[in-house]
Amino acid sequence: MNKLRVVIALGGNALQSNGEVTAEAQKAVAEKIGKTIAKLSKKYDIIITHGNGPQVGNILIHEESAATPSAPAMPLETAVAMSQGQIGYWLSQAIDNAFVAEKRHKQVVSIITQVIVDREDPAFRHPAKPIGQFYSAKEALKLSKSKGWEMREDAGRGYRRVVASPKPIDIVEKKQIMTLINSGAIVIAVGGGGIPVIQTKILKKLKGVDAVIDKDFAAEKLAELVKADVFVSLTAVPNAYINFGKPDQLALGVLNPKEAENYIDAGHFASGSMLPKIQAITQFAKKKGIGIIASPSNLELALERRAGTIIQ
Amino acid sequence: MNKLRVVIALGGNALQSNGEVTAEAQKAVAEKIGKTIAKLSKKYDIIITHGNGPQVGNILIHEESAATPSAPAMPLETAVAMSQGQIGYWLSQAIDNAFVAEKRHKQVVSIITQVIVDREDPAFRHPAKPIGQFYSAKEALKLSKSKGWEMREDAGRGYRRVVASPKPIDIVEKKQIMTLINSGAIVIAVGGGGIPVIQTKILKKLKGVDAVIDKDFAAEKLAELVKADVFVSLTAVPNAYINFGKPDQLALGVLNPKEAENYIDAGHFASGSMLPKIQAITQFAKKKGIGIIASPSNLELALERRAGTIIQ
Repeated sequence: MNKLRVVIALGGNALQSNGEVTAEAQKAVAEKIGKTIAKLSKKYDIIITHGNGPQVGNILIHEESAATPSAPAMPLETAVAMSQGQIGYWLSQAIDNAFVAEKRHKQVVSIITQVIVDREDPAFRHPAKPIGQFYSAKEALKLSKSKGWEMREDAGRGYRRVVASPKPIDIVEKKQIMTLINSGAIVIAVGGGGIPVIQTKILKKLKGVDAVIDKDFAAEKLAELVKADVFVSLTAVPNAYINFGKPDQLALGVLNPKEAENYIDAGHFASGSMLPKIQAITQFAKKKGIGIIASPSNLELALERRAGTIIQ
Repeated sequence: MNKLRVVIALGGNALQSNGEVTAEAQKAVAEKIGKTIAKLSKKYDIIITHGNGPQVGNILIHEESAATPSAPAMPLETAVAMSQGQIGYWLSQAIDNAFVAEKRHKQVVSIITQVIVDREDPAFRHPAKPIGQFYSAKEALKLSKSKGWEMREDAGRGYRRVVASPKPIDIVEKKQIMTLINSGAIVIAVGGGGIPVIQTKILKKLKGVDAVIDKDFAAEKLAELVKADVFVSLTAVPNAYINFGKPDQLALGVLNPKEAENYIDAGHFASGSMLPKIQAITQFAKKKGIGIIASPSNLELALERRAGTIIQ
């Protein structure tokens, strides 16, 4: 019997316990995740994707703060690739080690992944996703002039660069990912939502763009393309909630896509937080299979449809 | 008829023309390399590996110069992983685009690669490879105390950290690389000599170590493990030379491993430059197939054994 194919999306914050951001601290968290993944891989074929918000933020801070002519700052799209290397390494080694500890052998592999976005995506006309460090008004004006960055004042804390968050439309390395899945490997791909690339108008060449693809939407695209049965958006809480934080707060269990859409329309989910997760798993449930929101601690039960928020 | 399988090792400097180190400049060089690779892929199965000296150097400079408690510096082994993401992205996109331009379809994929070194490798007792930025004597002393780094004075220019350069003994992702090669993909792997990992004594867990694996030795190991027919160490000059820079300088053409070893023993090759390349291709020629030193401009002829230095 074929195992169910499960795409699991980890938040970039999921690697940071108590805000600890050293490599050692993030590796220690990855180690725990690795054990969970190794255990689940007995029952399921697992594909992993991950966010990169705090990690690429720190890469950009380093690149921008210490840029010189002989060591210039790397642009955002290249920084995303760097974060894929960083997090992909930590996760693949952690999963490798979980198998070593269990004396099992299974291949694990992280691949650098480019995700195609539409160069006409309306998001490019309204950059709204803040990235990197805070700047003073004066610095912001200078960067806006010298680099063409769009800068925005952020809640009294200073100015930050804002970039577009276009929708993912295809994954360049999808066949390579499938080849590896079919060989029995646990694949880590589409990190940080993927390196955003457009296709140039006439030649259709790939070209990196300074943008950020939402990790949950990119993961949903991955789940579709690899023909997953289940797509899990893993988060810090065990469920999605309606009336979150109010006296009548209610954890959502099993629901259908129409019900989920009604809750979305009623504004129950926080944008930039639970909203994209619910949207992504609803989209997957409408198109393809089962969408789940769960936390690391109830993931196993959620995959048996005994916990978590399940849209089907 | 099966195509010949060729592993090509690019120097990290190969991406930098006239010392230009911006992402744009390095991508422009990658574009040229991509065209060459796409052309060669008609006749050969190509696997690419690359150095990362200047790139990981700049990553470390950024990480160390702008380290704060909320954005701490990543260690060397993680910086190698970041450089694999960076360079792997540039190369795979460049090769993708060369195929797009030719209206051919071929899969290209960069994978994050860990390379196992012996934790008892004598190199760990004698760290000799300088990495990252220069420090004053005072800073060097402080770093030596706070981080346990071994620091060395470098030719009057200040102090630099030195790390071990142990020999590669195995590639963690070798099966995944083979799976992708066998699927017809052009694989980019073992970037920067690979992320150096040891196996812990009792549990045999993988653990990253702050070291640098020589790119040519790692590439030779890759060529062995993927059962390549030919291993090319690509460099800025079209041949290896004896009596280099002297009036009786002589470009080496076709020779056998014994002759190469005699020239090595006679001290004809500069350590850290031509020496590891000659050593690596000689080792490959003794064990497995044909070893070549060539430059991008004579690579195609060299693969036909009509140019370059060829050890067989």
